[in-house]
Amino acid sequence: MKPALILMSHGFLAQEAYEATKYITGDFGGVTVISMTMDDGLEGTSLKLEAALKSITGGCGVLIIADVPGGTPNNAAIKALARYDNIRVLSGLNLGMLIEYALSSDEDLDELVEAVRDAGLTSVKIFTKPHIDIAEGGGFED
Amino acid sequence: MKPALILMSHGFLAQEAYEATKYITGDFGGVTVISMTMDDGLEGTSLKLEAALKSITGGCGVLIIADVPGGTPNNAAIKALARYDNIRVLSGLNLGMLIEYALSSDEDLDELVEAVRDAGLTSVKIFTKPHIDIAEGGGFED
Repeated sequence: MKPALILMSHGFLAQEAYEATKYITGDFGGVTVISMTMDDGLEGTSLKLEAALKSITGGCGVLIIADVPGGTPNNAAIKALARYDNIRVLSGLNLGMLIEYALSSDEDLDELVEAVRDAGLTSVKIFTKPHIDIAEGGGFED
Repeated sequence: MKPALILMSHGFLAQEAYEATKYITGDFGGVTVISMTMDDGLEGTSLKLEAALKSITGGCGVLIIADVPGGTPNNAAIKALARYDNIRVLSGLNLGMLIEYALSSDEDLDELVEAVRDAGLTSVKIFTKPHIDIAEGGGFED
């Protein structure tokens, strides 16, 4: 069993990132989504995270991915780091990260968080005008 | 006037990323969201992008941010690169990118896309258990 995943964001960004991932990889489990509302603040968000962490059973640990450093969801996750040994926090949530998590079978929490971070970084990329070589049938990346 | 922004994703990821950004920065304009549905495919997504590009007036160019390299929204954006000179394509959409765009007043398209990419990369970060120095009143990053 691989580590569980908790996604945290302002509003429904995390939820829709999860939906988009399932669209690409097919359904996958082990995921809890925390959608911070305007009324939650740090306290309400921390309570939601605490409830999610308590509901997760199994000993492989939990990877928390939050939307942005300095945001309330990420701050709530950092607070939880002080209380739990078997959780890791990654920020900058994007689709590349979630695809990596969905397709990974790595059971080691530290290896998994680094692989997911690397996938997130790799997917951040500027594309330039393609050089289309007609003799080779085009140069698009698919 | 700064370059316009088009956000593209599988489903409503891009829409909710835009909503989350407004939650943080306040309302900002110049943004078009393209939500690919299961029926769109590359052709339907390209048609949506073409309509969006045609509807944008003003000479500062367009920054397109797509959700993930290799995905259909990103592929549609790359196709458009061959037909328009004043557009740039960035993939790996995350909240840090959109906050940077919202707060930027840079009118130069190439400078803007690099700053937005860098903000996206900087926001991808693993947080470790905080070292709380009680004498200094705690060590959380906010």
